[in-house]
Amino acid sequence: MSYRSPMATEPAKARAREIIDAAAEIFQQRGYADTSVQDVASAVGILKGSLYYYIDSKEDLLFRVLEDVHEDARHLLDEVAAMDAPPLERLAAYLRGHVEFNLRNLAKVAVYYHDFGLLAPERREEIIEQRKQYEHCVVGLIEEAQAAGEVDPALDAHVAAYSALGMVNWTYTWYRPRRGESQSEIADLIADIIVGGLRAAGRG
Amino acid sequence: MSYRSPMATEPAKARAREIIDAAAEIFQQRGYADTSVQDVASAVGILKGSLYYYIDSKEDLLFRVLEDVHEDARHLLDEVAAMDAPPLERLAAYLRGHVEFNLRNLAKVAVYYHDFGLLAPERREEIIEQRKQYEHCVVGLIEEAQAAGEVDPALDAHVAAYSALGMVNWTYTWYRPRRGESQSEIADLIADIIVGGLRAAGRG
Repeated sequence: MSYRSPMATEPAKARAREIIDAAAEIFQQRGYADTSVQDVASAVGILKGSLYYYIDSKEDLLFRVLEDVHEDARHLLDEVAAMDAPPLERLAAYLRGHVEFNLRNLAKVAVYYHDFGLLAPERREEIIEQRKQYEHCVVGLIEEAQAAGEVDPALDAHVAAYSALGMVNWTYTWYRPRRGESQSEIADLIADIIVGGLRAAGRG
Repeated sequence: MSYRSPMATEPAKARAREIIDAAAEIFQQRGYADTSVQDVASAVGILKGSLYYYIDSKEDLLFRVLEDVHEDARHLLDEVAAMDAPPLERLAAYLRGHVEFNLRNLAKVAVYYHDFGLLAPERREEIIEQRKQYEHCVVGLIEEAQAAGEVDPALDAHVAAYSALGMVNWTYTWYRPRRGESQSEIADLIADIIVGGLRAAGRG
């Protein structure tokens, strides 16, 4: 029985999460190519053989890290979709949530963006497909804002969405917790710039 | 005599440029680890021995690609610094120029952001130092805009600058020339969002 089965025990699920978090940290610090399954087992303090209860290979470990990022992103989008608010307000909530997630999960997010190209082709396609669906939701929010008159309908909603995601995603490259900036202040400022900029753009 | 000497002939300089461009393309497509100096020599159509007139090693080739990106970035900042215009107008000009450069130089920019960590430590430090100076100029423009009353002085100018650069830098991950969006329209939209967003942020 796999730890991913609904029958898996809570300790097995907690351990799986610990393994994924440790793998993300080590991939990010040492690079995927220079990390072994043994390194991850040692970091978690279990035998390499026990690790294979949770994963099939190092590439499987990479895939779990990436899946984890997507799962959280999906939850956030579902929450935002359920909000009863104008489109730009929902977009702002989504952007704030996404920035806060990224700042709390720096290693995973760095591995997500830096290393997804190292997956085997089939799984890489799966991640690309998930990412497209995700981007599609953000494009949809901007199109709704255009239909509602909040954003100039002449703007290219795809370019605007990719640009917004860029500002959000790039945070992992520069944010360092030790600098002491508040995560929620950073999230607010980014959401403000994007939403304020979308309201203003194209309207001279 | 090196091709970088002021005495180098124009053909030598043109060839050096061709080598750097080819290296960027191959690093981006195949990955730095899986590229050999021979691959680059073959792409340019010269003997591997001749390539060593221009570079000392594969890592040297990577460094040249990154230096090239910085050199263009510096030129742009110098141009913007010489403009007689309010700070946010200079920032907009800089952002437009930077986006257009990135879209025209996708391979180089991708290698710049993805692979600079693969440089030997000393050169990596050099690139990090250059990047800091560069970011510092963008922070400076935002601080000037705050002093001039164009931007809320309560905003964290560093977070705003890194965020603006994020939207600009991320373009290499999503822009594909075949989609046919105009490069200057993308540059205008990104500059509009950032500058409009900075004017609005923190002011309710």
